Parts: sequence; C-alpha cells; structure tokens
Amino acid sequence: MPRSTGSTPRKFHVHFESNSSKPRQFQVLESDVKAAVRRHPELARRLKITVGFDRKMLTEALRTADFLLNSDPPRDNLRALAPRLEWIQTTGAGIDGLLPLDWLPEGVVLTNNSGAHAAKAQDSGAMGLLMLNARIPEVMTAQRAKHWAHAFSSPIAGKTAVVIGFGDVGAAVGRGARKLGVNVIAVTRSGALTRATAKAADSVVPVSKLARVIGKADFVVVATPLTAQTRGLVDGAMLDRMKDGAGLMNIGRAPVVDYDALCARLESGKLSGAILDVFSPEPLPDSSPLWTVPNLVVLPHITCDDPRYIDFLLDFWFENFARRLAGRKLKNIVEPLRGY
Amino acid sequence: MPRSTGSTPRKFHVHFESNSSKPRQFQVLESDVKAAVRRHPELARRLKITVGFDRKMLTEALRTADFLLNSDPPRDNLRALAPRLEWIQTTGAGIDGLLPLDWLPEGVVLTNNSGAHAAKAQDSGAMGLLMLNARIPEVMTAQRAKHWAHAFSSPIAGKTAVVIGFGDVGAAVGRGARKLGVNVIAVTRSGALTRATAKAADSVVPVSKLARVIGKADFVVVATPLTAQTRGLVDGAMLDRMKDGAGLMNIGRAPVVDYDALCARLESGKLSGAILDVFSPEPLPDSSPLWTVPNLVVLPHITCDDPRYIDFLLDFWFENFARRLAGRKLKNIVEPLRGY
Repeated sequence: MPRSTGSTPRKFHVHFESNSSKPRQFQVLESDVKAAVRRHPELARRLKITVGFDRKMLTEALRTADFLLNSDPPRDNLRALAPRLEWIQTTGAGIDGLLPLDWLPEGVVLTNNSGAHAAKAQDSGAMGLLMLNARIPEVMTAQRAKHWAHAFSSPIAGKTAVVIGFGDVGAAVGRGARKLGVNVIAVTRSGALTRATAKAADSVVPVSKLARVIGKADFVVVATPLTAQTRGLVDGAMLDRMKDGAGLMNIGRAPVVDYDALCARLESGKLSGAILDVFSPEPLPDSSPLWTVPNLVVLPHITCDDPRYIDFLLDFWFENFARRLAGRKLKNIVEPLRGY
Repeated sequence: MPRSTGSTPRKFHVHFESNSSKPRQFQVLESDVKAAVRRHPELARRLKITVGFDRKMLTEALRTADFLLNSDPPRDNLRALAPRLEWIQTTGAGIDGLLPLDWLPEGVVLTNNSGAHAAKAQDSGAMGLLMLNARIPEVMTAQRAKHWAHAFSSPIAGKTAVVIGFGDVGAAVGRGARKLGVNVIAVTRSGALTRATAKAADSVVPVSKLARVIGKADFVVVATPLTAQTRGLVDGAMLDRMKDGAGLMNIGRAPVVDYDALCARLESGKLSGAILDVFSPEPLPDSSPLWTVPNLVVLPHITCDDPRYIDFLLDFWFENFARRLAGRKLKNIVEPLRGY
C-alpha cells in the first residue's frame, strides 16, 4: 500500500446504505462497520465513513460521497445528486435488478459481490446433487403424504452434471461435484477454457450448444446470472431434451428456467426431481402452487448465503479500496453491456 | 485357486433362498444367479445351485446343502434339517434379527454382507451432514406449511461430526465427511486406532466415553449395529449432552436412539434437525407420528442401498467361496458373542 509523503492525504467519503426491511444478513450495521474498521485500521484512517438506512440520510451523504455501498442505488439523476461519486459496490452478486445500466453515470464504476458465495455454493452444489441422486425430492413428497416410498439409487460417482453458468458460483458447484466423482460439463457464454473451467469442469461448451449437451446430464444445475441472454434459456423444449428421470437444481435466478414447464415435467414424471432456491418474487408467496408440486423441493434462497456475509462484503470492499489507493483496477467490475 | 488332480472334485450345493415379500433389491432371482455364474464360470463349475422363494423348497434343499444364502434361516433344529450345512450367508449387513445366535449349529459359520453398502453410505453421509448443516429438515417442515423461512448457515468445513459405530458404513461416512473438511470423531467399541479409523477419522474414542465427546458434535451420525450394548445408547440424557442446535442422523438401527426423546428435543428446539433412515418396524406405518414431527426428515431406509445390491452380494459370495475352496478363512464372519 502506498504511503503518503509530505502533507496529509485527503480522506475519501464512503457511505454504506442498507434497507432495514431486508434480512439482517444483508444489512450493514454500525457494529459491522466498526468491526471491519478494527480489521483494517490503516485503510480506515483514509476514510470518512457514514452508515444509513432506508434512504433517510442518503441525499445528504451523496453530496460528498466518493464511494457508495448499496443494493439499490438511486438511479434518477445520480450524477447531480452525487457529484464526486466514482464507485458503487452492490451488496449482492446478482445485479439483474439494476439492468439495464443506462442510469450509471460516466466515470462511475459498479462492482458486485461475486465470490463471497463460493464456499457455501460448493457445499450447496454437492448437497443438491446428492439429494437429486438419492431422489430426496420424491422422498420428501412421500413424507408429506405419510407414505413409505422406497426410492433406490446407485452411488453418484461417474454420473454427469451439466452446470449452466460457470462464474464463482457455478465453478464452486463444479469443484464440489468433482469431489464426488461427478463428471462436470460447464456451459459458459464463450465455451472458452479458462482457469476456472480447467479446474472445476471436465469439459466446457458454449451456451449456444446447450441443447446438444443437456441430454448427457443426470443433473442440471443452473447457476447463471439473469441477463437478456439467459432469461428463459431453460424452457420446455430444453427440458424435454433432458434425460428421462434426470434432476434439476436452480441456484441462479428464477426467470432463467420456465417453472411452469418444469412443474409439468415433474408432474408427468419426465424429470425425477427438482430443487429450487430462487423465485420471482421472493419471498415465495404462501399462495404459490410451487409449494406442493410433487418432487419439488423449495429452498428459501439459502444455498449461497452465509451468516458472515456482511463481514466478507466489508473485507472485500476494504481490499478493493486498497487497490483504488494503489491505483490498481478494482475487482468485480460489472461490464455494462454483458450485464454482470 | 487350487486345481483338482486326478478324479473330478465333488460339487458343493449352494441354495439361495429369498422372501418374495421383500423389495426386489433384496431378492435373489434366477436371472441374478445366471448373471453371477457368467461372471464366475470357473467357480460355478464346482457348484450345484438351487434358487427358492418363500420356503417352498427349502426343506428339500437343506437336505443336501453345504451353503445357504438367506436373510432368515430356519432356526429350529437346523442341524437335523441340514446335516451337511457349513456356511450361511445373510443378505444384509445387520443380523440383529437373528440374535442371539444360540440356534447356530456347531460347525456352521455365519457371514454377513457388510461392506456392500460403503459407496452409497459415503454419499449418504455427506448428503446428511450437508442437509443438517443447511438446516434442510427445518426448511422441509416450512415447505409443508407453505412458509418461507430463511435459515442461514455457514459453510460446513471445520465443523465436527461424531460418528457412532465405525464399521464399513461408519467409516464410509467418515471418509465422505472428511472430504467436506469436517472433523470426524469416531466412536467404536474399543476406541483402538485401526486402519479404518486412521484413514477416515481425525480421532477415535471408545463408546464408554461417548458422553464426554458428544458435546463436541455439530452433527451426530449413528451407524452402529444393534446389539445388547448399543440398544438405547443414544437416550434422552445423551441427547441433552449434545450442543444446542446440533443435528442427528441415524442410518444404523432405530432402537439405538430413543426416538421419543429425540422428537421432544426437536419440538423444543434443543436440536435443529434430524434425518432418520431406520425405523422399528419398517415400513414406518402411515399412522406413525414421526411423519410430521417438526424438523425431522423421514427417509425410507435408502441411505445404504443400491440397485446393484444383489450383484454385489453374489460377487461377494463367489469370492468367499473361492476362499473356502482355497482353505482360507471366510470374510465377514459374524462373531456370535459380539453379535455382528
């Protein structure tokens, strides 16, 4: 980290803004910030930090803020509100709620929190694959009916998972799957072999060839961000190309998969089970028919979350701030045209 | 394998006896035997093989049988019925239904099918630990109520599992757990360090010290056979020594755990969840209250079973027969006093 010489360097103003209606795990509290400052005392000396909730002091904070951390930044006329703003960090990994990014002023960089989810995603991917292999969705449906339903399955090693989307979450799923002896086919935008795909997948194909490989899957895991390109990617026709009796897990975004088409294929027995962790809207309303679809496990958006999430987020932010001070490129910059 | 010299060696008579009311996976069909004979042609030449169901031809077969494969051999006056019998192979790993072994004639060896379950048990152990860690039993209870219940959890690596019983199934659970980064404490009869415990556990303690170590567990996995020593081992007092919010999985035998005491601790929230794969009796009757206990997942005795089970069993039997021909000690001999 560069040290100042001569006069005291100026302090940067960062504002951490949260929505108090979100779960505790997604709110940055004063106590979280104090703990992070204790972990990063040198960096904190270069900062003026303000913490706000529910936009009560947001307008005032933006007048002088260099940096903003927030899931839902104000999009109308942001440059006028925040003349010095140069960097917005989002709380989550997915920024589909902010698309299109035409509101982002020139000279403002947007970073997301991709990567914080990896350890949990690896656990959840392995869990989901093992549950699909053991036909747990069917067993849970039988438990609801108080019915003993033998559902035998062979060990998972040697079976095949197609993982759609191979960012931090998808690659973590790939690593967890390979530890189980599962053959992993990664589906990415380009199909290029990268460090992530080389380590966590047995092969990689571009999304344009998804229809050709999806039939190899015993399990399909959807771990892609929601963009114009991925919306509706796994529709009824794509599901029909899956192997009879295969299973599906969605830990990406709900609109990537046609849930009506999926439910029809669970009802018909074409697919043996599904585990869904993402819905639109969330929380899933009590009135949703999804709660009782046979062989469907409903998870309340938990597969990638961690109680230490805000600590990870703030540590990530401070490390990125150190890069900013050193004049290096920030990590996790969202590319506006790509949309993630 | 020794070859006969001179006169043709005598054929041994093996009788495979099944109960047609059992699930298909536990019945030895003619087609299974034919396939096994094709896999072991040399050994098969030394055998006269008969296959029966529901004891229709059992009495006749026993008159000349040297070997019997059966889960439920006749126990009254067996020596008189089967004068040449020298070896009984059971279909399953657990032989608690045959205890005490006072009916076993002198000169008859009993072998079980321990070991056939290992690959599946490793998968199931990892799945169970991941499900308990992610609070899936709680989430499944919430799904039944159509209720969205955020249940966050940190990654599983670094947490601790106490595995009670470290035979083939328990050691497989230990291997699966360690691949997830879980610290494994094996609880065995003697507490001795063996090859199995050295490879699949971080430490091992004798069952006499279970009460001292159970409080370290984030997860307790019961994988012990049912014997006079293990019946009721995990009672209410033992459950009370568990960490608040810990989880339990039973893939051994139901009477090892006091299910009434367990359910009380799930209702009170002392334990966060349980996954039970074994019941008494099985199938669990529709009228059982266990189906709807909160934070309890009921599995229909599937965690250790494999559709290829009978193939494994017959291969194991033929390999043991080769040992018999070679004059070597059989594998998987049940020790009558130990009871497994």
